[in-house]
Amino acid sequence: METNYEKGLEMLGKMVSPEILQDTVERVKQFSPDMAKLIVEFPYGSIYSRPGLDLKQRSLITISSLVTQGAEGQLDFHINAALNVGLSPDEVVEAIMHCIPYAGFPKSLGALGVVMKVFKERNITY
Amino acid sequence: METNYEKGLEMLGKMVSPEILQDTVERVKQFSPDMAKLIVEFPYGSIYSRPGLDLKQRSLITISSLVTQGAEGQLDFHINAALNVGLSPDEVVEAIMHCIPYAGFPKSLGALGVVMKVFKERNITY
Amino acid sequence: METNYEKGLEMLGKMVSPEILQDTVERVKQFSPDMAKLIVEFPYGSIYSRPGLDLKQRSLITISSLVTQGAEGQLDFHINAALNVGLSPDEVVEAIMHCIPYAGFPKSLGALGVVMKVFKERNITY
Amino acid sequence: METNYEKGLEMLGKMVSPEILQDTVERVKQFSPDMAKLIVEFPYGSIYSRPGLDLKQRSLITISSLVTQGAEGQLDFHINAALNVGLSPDEVVEAIMHCIPYAGFPKSLGALGVVMKVFKERNITY
Amino acid sequence: METNYEKGLEMLGKMVSPEILQDTVERVKQFSPDMAKLIVEFPYGSIYSRPGLDLKQRSLITISSLVTQGAEGQLDFHINAALNVGLSPDEVVEAIMHCIPYAGFPKSLGALGVVMKVFKERNITY
Amino acid sequence: METNYEKGLEMLGKMVSPEILQDTVERVKQFSPDMAKLIVEFPYGSIYSRPGLDLKQRSLITISSLVTQGAEGQLDFHINAALNVGLSPDEVVEAIMHCIPYAGFPKSLGALGVVMKVFKERNITY
Repeated sequence: METNYEKGLEMLGKMVSPEILQDTVERVKQFSPDMAKLIVEFPYGSIYSRPGLDLKQRSLITISSLVTQGAEGQLDFHINAALNVGLSPDEVVEAIMHCIPYAGFPKSLGALGVVMKVFKERNITY
Repeated sequence: METNYEKGLEMLGKMVSPEILQDTVERVKQFSPDMAKLIVEFPYGSIYSRPGLDLKQRSLITISSLVTQGAEGQLDFHINAALNVGLSPDEVVEAIMHCIPYAGFPKSLGALGVVMKVFKERNITY
Repeated sequence: METNYEKGLEMLGKMVSPEILQDTVERVKQFSPDMAKLIVEFPYGSIYSRPGLDLKQRSLITISSLVTQGAEGQLDFHINAALNVGLSPDEVVEAIMHCIPYAGFPKSLGALGVVMKVFKERNITY
Repeated sequence: METNYEKGLEMLGKMVSPEILQDTVERVKQFSPDMAKLIVEFPYGSIYSRPGLDLKQRSLITISSLVTQGAEGQLDFHINAALNVGLSPDEVVEAIMHCIPYAGFPKSLGALGVVMKVFKERNITY
Repeated sequence: METNYEKGLEMLGKMVSPEILQDTVERVKQFSPDMAKLIVEFPYGSIYSRPGLDLKQRSLITISSLVTQGAEGQLDFHINAALNVGLSPDEVVEAIMHCIPYAGFPKSLGALGVVMKVFKERNITY
Repeated sequence: METNYEKGLEMLGKMVSPEILQDTVERVKQFSPDMAKLIVEFPYGSIYSRPGLDLKQRSLITISSLVTQGAEGQLDFHINAALNVGLSPDEVVEAIMHCIPYAGFPKSLGALGVVMKVFKERNITY
């Protein structure tokens, strides 16, 4: 039977490019293998891999949580993931806009800045 | 052409029962008609009524934002709305669980308490 | 020269009624005199007593910070204080409404609930 | 009758210089005209334009909300706005200091860093 | 080899009384066995069970995180746990006071209210 | 008798190097002597100097509060302080990991980035 670590790695493979995976999980792994293991196993192996919601639904929830807590540093990874699992650029921008009445303009505008950067890197003309 | 206020009322009619609408928007309206107008117009008339995401997607984003900011007082309304626009009880619980790695256990557990209360009120056997 | 503790008590005397002071600071004092001393000395003796802003301006800032962090438990005290230092009921409600675009609807609505309760207790017909 | 968008633009014209307006709202507009429209219409057209509080009071509330949520990215704009609508440099610094007991030192110190930067850019010797 | 679930249950047995465990984890388990499994496995099986910090150090960190996010609903459980793993009542109160400059008075005072309740339930004369 | 300002300076002398003290408190002092005085007096003179918890315990609490509120800008100072008062590099990393279930991965990962930077600056091979 597959371990949560294996399930997590497989899930991450669907969500981001090998380059982004290298830049994020691998960089943590060199510093603290235990921390990297927790990242792969818990959010990706135990949560994202659960049935009940598809990856597009899960991406919307993750993005909304990151916007709401002002976690701009992690948003880059998850906007890339959202596009990779099939959300359209329009759905990603719309999700940020939907957060405005709940999380407020300051956090939504901060998030929009990250979206603009990611779209530019991916040559998405929006 | 329909105003944002009219669009907002129509949207709220799809999201919650007349009883809940009475208990929430109407109670605010008696105290501050301007505040009630802002509630109807902005989140429901200007945001929820936009194209680009369907109501089930919007409900997931709202719930995630409320869980992440610990806004348990508003969660009751939006869990009812989520079920009314077509999310299954399982999807609602799964959305709360998906928030765990991002918003942390304390906020997710607080939200689960509200879900349990709403399911009981609606006689949902989960 | 007056100590910060003395300045703090004097300031609190201007901000809330003896009954509310009894219910809050005194209740803490019986449990932890050190904690009560910190409360009187720092926010009221060292900060509220500073020149540079008047008490009405300081009340607006405090209320906005409490709304934004969802600190409903402390809002009762500070809405009473705001009215006692001379903000009108209309200014208090307007301050909550001004927070909407910045702190979001859920926190602003939670705060409005506290305002409604305090106005009722004070027989303010708004 | 003036629309909320027109009222919002007029309000923004009183709050920040054409250069800052260009750098913020216009940059968003090129990416997402709908997002830019929401920014102009809601916080500036619907909220800032309301009677009941003057622009100096509204600036204090906005700054306090931004400090409390750690929204340093939006603070630059609103410190400039505060000075433009007539708050003195001393009142702006005092507002940040007033937030300390409520929002804590880390967020207040982060905000002070932005104030120092803005004062330097405006050649304000404080 | 012991699973994370078994390690988690064992850890929880050291942290809280069987009655509190029943009231919290078991109540969740009846509603959502998966959620209860995640609670036992991750914070208690994967994190609390790690070497590197003792249980008293871990309790201080947990309490500080709960105070800072205003998670009063979960604080009861963790103040009980702190006392059970060997922190003195004085250390618990002192930890709340240490949070004041970082998390602010409103959240620290909210937490103190929970401490007062738990001490009363445990007949701790402080 | 020693004033809180003197106690605070003495405490800061134990917590960080003269260089870091210069970069932080002194930089604030040149801009706003009152703000610098509040920083020295309150968190360091009034709180850190209290009996009841040792400096290693206080460092853990501070770090947990900073991680939980996402205050990465102040974390550098307090990770240096934690190492200076005797927490091992392993305890510091472990404290960040302990925050994961409570504050969530995004904030814990942001904090880990600061830890990695500080360890590199101090030539700590972890």
